[in-house]
Amino acid sequence: MPHFTIEYSANLDARVDFDRLCRTIHKTILDTGLFEIGAIRVRTIRCADYAVADLLPENGFIDMAFRIGHGRSDAEKKATGTAIFEAVTQELASLFATPHFALSLEVREIDPDLSWKKNAIHPRLRPKGN
Amino acid sequence: MPHFTIEYSANLDARVDFDRLCRTIHKTILDTGLFEIGAIRVRTIRCADYAVADLLPENGFIDMAFRIGHGRSDAEKKATGTAIFEAVTQELASLFATPHFALSLEVREIDPDLSWKKNAIHPRLRPKGN
Amino acid sequence: MPHFTIEYSANLDARVDFDRLCRTIHKTILDTGLFEIGAIRVRTIRCADYAVADLLPENGFIDMAFRIGHGRSDAEKKATGTAIFEAVTQELASLFATPHFALSLEVREIDPDLSWKKNAIHPRLRPKGN
Repeated sequence: MPHFTIEYSANLDARVDFDRLCRTIHKTILDTGLFEIGAIRVRTIRCADYAVADLLPENGFIDMAFRIGHGRSDAEKKATGTAIFEAVTQELASLFATPHFALSLEVREIDPDLSWKKNAIHPRLRPKGN
Repeated sequence: MPHFTIEYSANLDARVDFDRLCRTIHKTILDTGLFEIGAIRVRTIRCADYAVADLLPENGFIDMAFRIGHGRSDAEKKATGTAIFEAVTQELASLFATPHFALSLEVREIDPDLSWKKNAIHPRLRPKGN
Repeated sequence: MPHFTIEYSANLDARVDFDRLCRTIHKTILDTGLFEIGAIRVRTIRCADYAVADLLPENGFIDMAFRIGHGRSDAEKKATGTAIFEAVTQELASLFATPHFALSLEVREIDPDLSWKKNAIHPRLRPKGN
């Protein structure tokens, strides 16, 4: 945790720089100060087939899910979601200039009693000693 | 919202017309009268590796998830799920004629307090004025 | 149900045998004795774009989700998750030897009132008569 997944319609391949979008979201998550860098995992899932709105071929979507560990307040969760959504909206402004694009984000907390994790990156990035 | 995602084992590529399946589900969602056309996003996710049931190479699956906004009654949610499941079952009747296929659907409501959306398609499709 | 999904960063393609990993997880699920063989569906989802931890190109992740039906106790769910996580950790020991890999697992129960299923594999595998 945290896990950030970006599902998108394949017709956006040529219109969105998804590597850049992943880095924008990564930076926004980090800038909240609520998450440890070694745990951040942002990624895309490309959807080759889709049926969006009135089925015009240029209709496209990006649907984002942010799954986080237990421990942040409701206000922190809302502020984090808002910050990410605003950063993405700004980066994708050209898409919103068309009447063919929809963006969404859902934040969901992972049940601490039913999750497991092992991270070999943390020891490299965490401050040594104290 | 609503978001409809179809995960499937890659061995179904040649046996299912997934573009058609997306459209069938899109139409069934729309026909319930409970969802606005500009918000419907149906899509597929192809799973290249898989291990299904007794591991016969012809074993395949389609697993569907329908994430919807808050506001429909339990009865409406159940009726929507049933309608979609029946439409898909009918379209995939030839697969059920083999002992190698499993279909599933889960409906889940999105938390309105922890979701964000911006849709540039709605203004084009919503009735003008009132 | 049960549904087991493995999301991974594409830079692991050459370092992990995902077909083998699916089979390891499949066997571990079956060995718990809590799930019927005909219902087990393990699969991978490859993420082509990603931004992980401090953005080193070799940083990679595997994030696993296990969605199960209602009916197992909390202790059974915890034991199942632990067994799977240990089996995967052991198989991927070489990745944990690098400071560039993070593994995670979440178990989640599917709402029985809002799920549908039809399985043509069960009749072939279930014991005949009684």
